[in-house]
Amino acid sequence: MTRQPPLPDLIVEPIVRNALMEDLGSAGDVTTRTVIPADTRYAARLNARAEGRVSGMQAARLAFSLIDPDLAIDTIVPDGAPCTPGDTLMTISGRAASILAAERVALNLAGRMSGIATLTAAHVARAQGTATRITCTRKTTPGLRILEKQAVLHGGGFNHRHNLSDAILIKDNHIAAAGGIRPVLEATRAARSHMIRVEIEVDSLAQLEEVLATGGAEVVLLDNMDTDTLARAVTMARGKVVTEASGNMTLARIAEVAATGVDYISIGALTHSAGTLDLGLDF
Amino acid sequence: MTRQPPLPDLIVEPIVRNALMEDLGSAGDVTTRTVIPADTRYAARLNARAEGRVSGMQAARLAFSLIDPDLAIDTIVPDGAPCTPGDTLMTISGRAASILAAERVALNLAGRMSGIATLTAAHVARAQGTATRITCTRKTTPGLRILEKQAVLHGGGFNHRHNLSDAILIKDNHIAAAGGIRPVLEATRAARSHMIRVEIEVDSLAQLEEVLATGGAEVVLLDNMDTDTLARAVTMARGKVVTEASGNMTLARIAEVAATGVDYISIGALTHSAGTLDLGLDF
Amino acid sequence: MTRQPPLPDLIVEPIVRNALMEDLGSAGDVTTRTVIPADTRYAARLNARAEGRVSGMQAARLAFSLIDPDLAIDTIVPDGAPCTPGDTLMTISGRAASILAAERVALNLAGRMSGIATLTAAHVARAQGTATRITCTRKTTPGLRILEKQAVLHGGGFNHRHNLSDAILIKDNHIAAAGGIRPVLEATRAARSHMIRVEIEVDSLAQLEEVLATGGAEVVLLDNMDTDTLARAVTMARGKVVTEASGNMTLARIAEVAATGVDYISIGALTHSAGTLDLGLDF
Amino acid sequence: MTRQPPLPDLIVEPIVRNALMEDLGSAGDVTTRTVIPADTRYAARLNARAEGRVSGMQAARLAFSLIDPDLAIDTIVPDGAPCTPGDTLMTISGRAASILAAERVALNLAGRMSGIATLTAAHVARAQGTATRITCTRKTTPGLRILEKQAVLHGGGFNHRHNLSDAILIKDNHIAAAGGIRPVLEATRAARSHMIRVEIEVDSLAQLEEVLATGGAEVVLLDNMDTDTLARAVTMARGKVVTEASGNMTLARIAEVAATGVDYISIGALTHSAGTLDLGLDF
Amino acid sequence: MTRQPPLPDLIVEPIVRNALMEDLGSAGDVTTRTVIPADTRYAARLNARAEGRVSGMQAARLAFSLIDPDLAIDTIVPDGAPCTPGDTLMTISGRAASILAAERVALNLAGRMSGIATLTAAHVARAQGTATRITCTRKTTPGLRILEKQAVLHGGGFNHRHNLSDAILIKDNHIAAAGGIRPVLEATRAARSHMIRVEIEVDSLAQLEEVLATGGAEVVLLDNMDTDTLARAVTMARGKVVTEASGNMTLARIAEVAATGVDYISIGALTHSAGTLDLGLDF
Amino acid sequence: MTRQPPLPDLIVEPIVRNALMEDLGSAGDVTTRTVIPADTRYAARLNARAEGRVSGMQAARLAFSLIDPDLAIDTIVPDGAPCTPGDTLMTISGRAASILAAERVALNLAGRMSGIATLTAAHVARAQGTATRITCTRKTTPGLRILEKQAVLHGGGFNHRHNLSDAILIKDNHIAAAGGIRPVLEATRAARSHMIRVEIEVDSLAQLEEVLATGGAEVVLLDNMDTDTLARAVTMARGKVVTEASGNMTLARIAEVAATGVDYISIGALTHSAGTLDLGLDF
Repeated sequence: MTRQPPLPDLIVEPIVRNALMEDLGSAGDVTTRTVIPADTRYAARLNARAEGRVSGMQAARLAFSLIDPDLAIDTIVPDGAPCTPGDTLMTISGRAASILAAERVALNLAGRMSGIATLTAAHVARAQGTATRITCTRKTTPGLRILEKQAVLHGGGFNHRHNLSDAILIKDNHIAAAGGIRPVLEATRAARSHMIRVEIEVDSLAQLEEVLATGGAEVVLLDNMDTDTLARAVTMARGKVVTEASGNMTLARIAEVAATGVDYISIGALTHSAGTLDLGLDF
Repeated sequence: MTRQPPLPDLIVEPIVRNALMEDLGSAGDVTTRTVIPADTRYAARLNARAEGRVSGMQAARLAFSLIDPDLAIDTIVPDGAPCTPGDTLMTISGRAASILAAERVALNLAGRMSGIATLTAAHVARAQGTATRITCTRKTTPGLRILEKQAVLHGGGFNHRHNLSDAILIKDNHIAAAGGIRPVLEATRAARSHMIRVEIEVDSLAQLEEVLATGGAEVVLLDNMDTDTLARAVTMARGKVVTEASGNMTLARIAEVAATGVDYISIGALTHSAGTLDLGLDF
Repeated sequence: MTRQPPLPDLIVEPIVRNALMEDLGSAGDVTTRTVIPADTRYAARLNARAEGRVSGMQAARLAFSLIDPDLAIDTIVPDGAPCTPGDTLMTISGRAASILAAERVALNLAGRMSGIATLTAAHVARAQGTATRITCTRKTTPGLRILEKQAVLHGGGFNHRHNLSDAILIKDNHIAAAGGIRPVLEATRAARSHMIRVEIEVDSLAQLEEVLATGGAEVVLLDNMDTDTLARAVTMARGKVVTEASGNMTLARIAEVAATGVDYISIGALTHSAGTLDLGLDF
Repeated sequence: MTRQPPLPDLIVEPIVRNALMEDLGSAGDVTTRTVIPADTRYAARLNARAEGRVSGMQAARLAFSLIDPDLAIDTIVPDGAPCTPGDTLMTISGRAASILAAERVALNLAGRMSGIATLTAAHVARAQGTATRITCTRKTTPGLRILEKQAVLHGGGFNHRHNLSDAILIKDNHIAAAGGIRPVLEATRAARSHMIRVEIEVDSLAQLEEVLATGGAEVVLLDNMDTDTLARAVTMARGKVVTEASGNMTLARIAEVAATGVDYISIGALTHSAGTLDLGLDF
Repeated sequence: MTRQPPLPDLIVEPIVRNALMEDLGSAGDVTTRTVIPADTRYAARLNARAEGRVSGMQAARLAFSLIDPDLAIDTIVPDGAPCTPGDTLMTISGRAASILAAERVALNLAGRMSGIATLTAAHVARAQGTATRITCTRKTTPGLRILEKQAVLHGGGFNHRHNLSDAILIKDNHIAAAGGIRPVLEATRAARSHMIRVEIEVDSLAQLEEVLATGGAEVVLLDNMDTDTLARAVTMARGKVVTEASGNMTLARIAEVAATGVDYISIGALTHSAGTLDLGLDF
Repeated sequence: MTRQPPLPDLIVEPIVRNALMEDLGSAGDVTTRTVIPADTRYAARLNARAEGRVSGMQAARLAFSLIDPDLAIDTIVPDGAPCTPGDTLMTISGRAASILAAERVALNLAGRMSGIATLTAAHVARAQGTATRITCTRKTTPGLRILEKQAVLHGGGFNHRHNLSDAILIKDNHIAAAGGIRPVLEATRAARSHMIRVEIEVDSLAQLEEVLATGGAEVVLLDNMDTDTLARAVTMARGKVVTEASGNMTLARIAEVAATGVDYISIGALTHSAGTLDLGLDF
């Protein structure tokens, strides 16, 4: 289930346009132009061939409509909904040459985004019954971040920061360069905007202690801790800062980590290793 | 081992620039700008944390140099070379703020491309000792195709067509729309350029027979055939057309399929399901 | 005094390039090309003709270097520093035709940004001796927001959110559409990312009371309140949420408003009505 | 009253698109997407809250329609018309989320352009009853020049050259570099196109004398002259060249300067210091 | 007669948009905006004033519709069809100001492309009755290649490779750098994709002999041969490789060269020296 | 001989970059990458193979340097200078792969621009000994106008307006729509900027008479007149307006037309039908 209305097409369209231009190459779809009569018309269905969570339907729709504004496109299964093999997600009808020219881009985008939504949903399911939320990272595909962040939402997850300018995340290198936790948090307090969140990475309970004593961060990233340490960190932080567990958060560990009461588990694999959901276009 | 010189930076730079702008967001790296003194200097190493085949070093270099032309960057392990955990692939030194701002984009690009090169190399290894070549498809990440196609080369594979305009590939839908194999090949012969290859998909030996009898294609795509059928198809086609096996070509099947003598095995998973190779930046 | 290192040129360059192309028009600087001998060389100084706070030097430098990479450019007074009439802010030497072609764009950008920094500094001065900070809004010049936000920093102010995606700011229309303060905060809590700040606008102490009782916002925007009401609101909010005063915040009121102990005063006029600081290029 | 039909949307759209992308940021309007139900519909009015001259309606319309082509938009008061507080300039109805996402960009553009038109109209009013025309300069906001030049027209003013390539304007630096007024005008005559105007700046009656004696310029810029000198210059130039007064042309001086019979008064402040006209969106 | 359906507008539109922006300049069509009343409506006809072959109608249509989506445009004579003086190729009706603003770009594009189609058709006519095909080269106008390659198709010709990446063409410099014909072909065989054609240039029968003996090329470019040598080369190559004659292929020689049985004659002049077909817009 | 310094690279670079991307296609120069060893170095000369006037050297230089900033490039014969067969115009040395990849774009641009300069010079030569100047029109190649206008200058010609916004040119359609010569000139006078030229087309001496009587135009376009009528028109207009002869101005007529004393002869063929000057790259 999606919790958000779609993005304005204005944001998604340049990404899809770029993908189409990349695939069309210099001269468009020479195969189709060579062998398909101009007046051949198709009614096609974009079908799921595997079970999962749907995402990328907005991008797929734009792939077809940018190639040919006269195609009739009907989204049956919206972004964020589940699918099972054989479900028709979208119907497209109109000039055959147009449908064939847009097919691969539409499938590449929808398959990849549905893969991310599906993997996210699998992680979310492991945390069910707890208040722990699943979140992504910045380990996204260059050029497709907004679509992949949306796919995480479609899978029931939450978004971490979108880019380097919309939140402060102080990592070990920053702490080292600034001379320790206290100085780094004081420098941050002096310069930060009140409209931006501050998160700081800690590797040990001693570091967490120092962060809590210093103040100035709203979120702590509990990095690469074993589950016991994590549980103690969560207890220390409760009511003071939001907690986020990170590092080696495999699907198998989610239930156990969520049981510690941590607020968020962040997982790079949601976007960097999701694979694609098997989708196909049938005529 | 790479068989090709690098692409001109002119081609790769817009992709990396786009990725940096996406990650910098409206205001650049606010964390670094807030906490890292402007004159802090780092010497960083881009290290492999897993065994594999390296790709994306050109893109990583550009990520650093576009953020800060004054960084000193030295590529130690070139695209196409193997790596083992702990290998330093690249060294970067200069302003700490610059290195940190470019880090994620460099890692996202190099990790993804090295993942593809590594997966390709694994498939190539299974075909070793035969003349069969491993090739990719158009199931690439939208916006990154040229880098992913390069990564396949770096893994020892070969490229299929780059886009819809640089080769003709006649699939089942085209055959159906044109009224059969003979008419589709005749239409193609009448209109094709002499500088463009023609490949046609066949699902059965009967279809292959008809293609060979009609002429007009240089490559046949043997789609979704079991290994026995494939072997017979290869025998039929030998000396007449190039053969390419496709559909359900898992890593486990490569050796067996290569043993049929087929010229090429094409595998969408090389690019759509490769995951990333674990790389990290150490200071 | 500036608290931040400069933005990467990568972010500023496209804005300056666009401005240069706009001013060069189809055929470049025809006057200069017509009457200035190609080998005439100038040494020019960018001088302040008024007292103020300097901003836009990075953009001015890029204007000159994009027109002619061979110009020698030396920034004497950096962004964020004060200036008095007659101060030389930058020296530029090289081909006269290049300096003249870039002059107007450099002055337009630096004059405008210095105007914003100067107006910001005037407001900051009125709040001196208190902990109240001066902040801007989204009422910036379309296309120049990042430079104007930087200029506010250079004037000693702080930045509000950069765009619609990097913080949540719930205004009266949002409250009305969602059915009231409690429902809007609950909807926000359910969907918000942990890396994004939530601010809510209140027009009365009763609304503030409800916000504090409901929780879920880190910042309250105290809109269009008289100074007494503001003082009571600040007292109510202390230790619970960050407070921001907004609406009719003229320069004359800043000292009085800051005396209430409010954390931030936000002022659209900093960017939408700043005018330009008088700068000139002397040869 | 506007004297010109609107620009083609083709020219204005990229500017508005750029402004929207800047304001939407990476992820669009997260506030609205979080709290406004997708099916909420609004009827909004863009109202004037101050007296003035309207400009920027074309840009405002495009801001709404680019975000959502399904919005119904009706321009009530066209560019170039006067407004009084409370006047509804435009009505917009449709998805609430779309209207809210475009609101700030529409207001920023229309407020700024109406501010310029209003300030221009104030200057034009001071010259009423004379043949003197008010004109702008190149001191415009980088990236918005065409809109600002239009706003000057909407205020009843005239445009000076649009960019460095559409007219020749010989200033003191050019004269110095070329070796004086006679050589600079001779060099110009030899190289100029017949389709481009030549204007030359003079600071004294002696310089004007030399320009008139040499010929080759159609317009003289009478720079920084007191009113008496200006009057004598106008008398000398009458019937020979068009005259333009420039430098320190404050609103208070316009009537007196216009009384000299000068053809044009050019005023940088029209665009660089106009402020915004107070406009608001009411639901 | 055209053998291909039109390109997707997606490919052609950016070229036309760029051309319109170039011609509109900073401020649009000031003449029309100054003198044509906004409600004047025209019905215009795009007429041929010379005999020839039509191309560029898609681009012309886009020029009008991008300027004004409300224009009614009807293409009477499609790309690839012949025309005689007086033929109406397209009708356009709607706002006069829109039609006049797009006129020059539409004519520049359609005139140039029809010129190429017409020159191509003249060459094709000389080869009539033979199986020899006329093909273009990469000597196209920078930025307009796809339109010019289409124009060659509209004239009855065939396309050579579109760009440097969609076919391998080994010229004398490549052969020299690689150490001869055998090594260059072996290097190619080792690295080439199976989806890309290989052509090699030969200047003598001895070189052709070596190419045929070595194998690995599908096409030979017979460069600058006299007709007798060409005839012998064609005989040698028959049934083994496709032959292409190149170099000094004037219109006068086409019939004689075609009589040798060569498969293709490639002619740079088709695109680099075609001139324009005289077209005009009548009201 | 050129009368103008070169354009800033800032203006020319995007055109050359676009041309290179068009020619490189998806994957760069696959031939060179396949067969040229990475360390092969060349010293190449760009040679004239015909007599003419050189233009496009700036663009050619950028083609090489954009592909490879490490190439050493030396321009021997500058834009605007004459050349004879065998002249070396430019030397380029460095990586062979880079030189070969940029070769075609450099030649296409330089050949085309030198063709225009050469044709212009031929027309200029016919007017030698008179004061008549040769000028181009807006019948330029879409996307290359600025380069072609420069080429006209390099050939000794003059530029007409660059685009629709930098001068007013009132043609027959405008006159008809506005209700005649007097009303069109009055409407123009009321609305025109003082920095823009006004030209009006006349087809007869009666029309010229009316234009001269009405005033308000600085240039008259004498369209499609025979030489006698032209001579009388020039006599009528002398000392009042600049005269431009247009329509059917073939090379053969130039001397005769120039003898009438007309100020300018405008010739669309300079840019739309110039062909290319034969240039080649030798190694």
